[in-house]
Amino acid sequence: MEFNPITPEILAEIINVTGSDHTFFEKDDLFRFSHDETEDLHFYPEVVALPKSAEEVSELVKICSNNQIPITPRGAGTSLSGGALPLHGGLVICMERMNQLIEIDERNLQATAEAGLITQVLMTAVEEKGLFYPVDPASKGSCFIGGNVSHSSGGPQVVKYGTIREYILNLQVVLPSGEIIWTGANTLKFSSGYNLTQLFIGSEGTLGIVTKIVVKLIPKPAENMVMLASFPSNESACEAVSAIFRAGQTPSSLEFIERKGIEWVMEHDSISFDLVDGIEAFLLIQVDGDNQDSLFQQCEKINVVLEENGCTDVLLADTTAQKEALWSMRRLVAVSVKSNSIYKEEDTVVPRAELPKLIKGIKEIGKKYGFESVCYGHAGDGNLHVNIIKSTMTDEEWNTVLPHGITEIFNLTVALGGTISGEHGIGYVQKGYLPLKFSATHIDLMKGIKKVFDPKGIMNPGKIF
Amino acid sequence: MEFNPITPEILAEIINVTGSDHTFFEKDDLFRFSHDETEDLHFYPEVVALPKSAEEVSELVKICSNNQIPITPRGAGTSLSGGALPLHGGLVICMERMNQLIEIDERNLQATAEAGLITQVLMTAVEEKGLFYPVDPASKGSCFIGGNVSHSSGGPQVVKYGTIREYILNLQVVLPSGEIIWTGANTLKFSSGYNLTQLFIGSEGTLGIVTKIVVKLIPKPAENMVMLASFPSNESACEAVSAIFRAGQTPSSLEFIERKGIEWVMEHDSISFDLVDGIEAFLLIQVDGDNQDSLFQQCEKINVVLEENGCTDVLLADTTAQKEALWSMRRLVAVSVKSNSIYKEEDTVVPRAELPKLIKGIKEIGKKYGFESVCYGHAGDGNLHVNIIKSTMTDEEWNTVLPHGITEIFNLTVALGGTISGEHGIGYVQKGYLPLKFSATHIDLMKGIKKVFDPKGIMNPGKIF
Repeated sequence: MEFNPITPEILAEIINVTGSDHTFFEKDDLFRFSHDETEDLHFYPEVVALPKSAEEVSELVKICSNNQIPITPRGAGTSLSGGALPLHGGLVICMERMNQLIEIDERNLQATAEAGLITQVLMTAVEEKGLFYPVDPASKGSCFIGGNVSHSSGGPQVVKYGTIREYILNLQVVLPSGEIIWTGANTLKFSSGYNLTQLFIGSEGTLGIVTKIVVKLIPKPAENMVMLASFPSNESACEAVSAIFRAGQTPSSLEFIERKGIEWVMEHDSISFDLVDGIEAFLLIQVDGDNQDSLFQQCEKINVVLEENGCTDVLLADTTAQKEALWSMRRLVAVSVKSNSIYKEEDTVVPRAELPKLIKGIKEIGKKYGFESVCYGHAGDGNLHVNIIKSTMTDEEWNTVLPHGITEIFNLTVALGGTISGEHGIGYVQKGYLPLKFSATHIDLMKGIKKVFDPKGIMNPGKIF
Repeated sequence: MEFNPITPEILAEIINVTGSDHTFFEKDDLFRFSHDETEDLHFYPEVVALPKSAEEVSELVKICSNNQIPITPRGAGTSLSGGALPLHGGLVICMERMNQLIEIDERNLQATAEAGLITQVLMTAVEEKGLFYPVDPASKGSCFIGGNVSHSSGGPQVVKYGTIREYILNLQVVLPSGEIIWTGANTLKFSSGYNLTQLFIGSEGTLGIVTKIVVKLIPKPAENMVMLASFPSNESACEAVSAIFRAGQTPSSLEFIERKGIEWVMEHDSISFDLVDGIEAFLLIQVDGDNQDSLFQQCEKINVVLEENGCTDVLLADTTAQKEALWSMRRLVAVSVKSNSIYKEEDTVVPRAELPKLIKGIKEIGKKYGFESVCYGHAGDGNLHVNIIKSTMTDEEWNTVLPHGITEIFNLTVALGGTISGEHGIGYVQKGYLPLKFSATHIDLMKGIKKVFDPKGIMNPGKIF
């Protein structure tokens, strides 16, 4: 695709829509829109506009469509696959001013939000009404719900409550033509033609810009319990994961952390934790429900399974503070690695009983190619995040050898019935690996769909394929 | 689209794939493939082939593609919107010989089935292993899982367990070109490009033919309880529905039946039931879980809400036989109406708190246009089935006046935030109404997607749009 630069005349048209206070074009102002949370990548847009309404988004898109200007839709910039990087310059349309929680409909257990609402703000607001929106990515305190939709984001509670696909009922989107449509209906079920709501989920801003979102809410469970289980090896911890479900138990979260993850957190975040010799991996397990006795029974049943699978110690969090301490340790793993080293993050996902083979394979591949990794993630979903650390690797090794290692990791993931991203998306940094999972025919179908929505190719170009 | 007839030469090619025992072309043999369960509509195919494998399906599709022959994929023929009607003749590819349950993977809580497996067979097989596949349409004893996928089918347990979209992990499909692909991965999460699995769900056989299906399983809940609640009016019963969820309770089923529905069952199926004067509507409520005490508590909490909303009597089923009797009464409603009158069935769905307005409106529209209706359905999902009975209407009224009444029903549905089909699909009989819900732009996007997959337009032509 050929694109045009944003001329002073086009800039004036953009400013006419979003106003000079909410239109940036000086290099200093553009810096924060030149990157997301993907490695240390930077691409500068020519202009950034911060619209306040779908109508303003529509006007901006029409200007770009008329002038063949590339558009990069942007949420909070927490993406981990380069989805928000403006590879071709052009216009970034950032949703941060479209941050209203429009309605909590308690009669229908639904909420309507603008795409720029922070996920945690939505969660807290509905919890105050006894309701629950369970899709909580680790970045929930800063990420936007629109970005969650675009990346089919997950989080620790998917394992019990289902994916974001089950909670997104309807989307208002601005198409690459500038037209505004609602993709579906505000209903729990839909069998009325192709489901464009589902097609937009995970489409990474390549088909249009999500502006409003109707989500399903459920009653908030009254109680929860949190346990931390210690294991002598990664494989034994991973074996326990599928055994828990086979025993008929469905925790509300089931997270894996390897020892090295806890070590990074202890070193960089001054968290004190009694890290016993010989312990190599942990499972953080939460159960929830309305009846405390049932939860105790569930914990006991899970305990039996843990012991059968080599667990050497279980810590049951007694207080809210203790629960929060365990959860924050889990959430800090990624942050510690990212703040203190050059890294790449992979988002492998396999059928959950294949986790032991996956983690064993990843460590072997690391040895073969000379890279260190810290693994953690949503083990209950079979979703393992692999943070690869540059450490002592040379730039040469990092740039030319490591990709072969990542290819091997993804080939293993696919061979185990999995795929190369469970919840982070393909974006810019993983697109070269997509053919490891899908045939040319398959990718051509995706490209064909893209062309139906975006014949000019202006919407988030260079992402996914 | 222009299509060619099946010549003797082409028939010979087809027979070469499926053999003369599994290829039909005599009128008597074609009769059962000329209709589904949609009204009394009949369209004859020219040829019916019953393949035994995806490879055979692929061969058949290639023959049709090479010769511009229309293909109608067919499951068990239980569709309610004419999805399986061969409108343009051509070839019916019926999946009934592809009925194998290939694997129950207890380690991963997944099963793999051929598309022609009967849904109940899958459910029973996994239940024997303590597992649960909760997507159970009323026709579960005869419908095929492939048809369920193609129509985004639901059933009474969606309200707690989520839609079929949450349980279908991966699909093997034969594309209109004859190529065979898997649409996704055998994983609980997927963020690896456009989700073709989700696109195929509800696409009604217009994008390709589903041949194998990987489903997610969950642990089977140990206990359940069933209640039948009586109400003096449709509106009070429907008001109670959303009140139950607002009170923090999530039943595993929450079904609505109006008095007339029970009367039809009593008259035509010799079911004895003490139908008290003044009772106009019923809610059939099921709760399930692993702890009987919790279920009792849940029933008590629901009871309080029922009483607050005008419920006059609650019958708690004591025995398995009594539970089954109540459920069979619910399931017989549609069967009674369909076996004993000319009818049309609509599949309205709205946000659940709008149900009282929907049912009131439907009855008013019925009075205005002179038609009688029997309403029942998955009230917990806001999904109301409306069986319209011909009764004393003339053919003229039925054919020319009634469509205006249906248009009003759908306009009301859409105005309440709903859509024209929740789980039956658009197929042939509802496609004229699709523009009541979606703009021309929206429908053009759907048509564009269709064209990407099926540029020759041979796959289930004349359905959806």
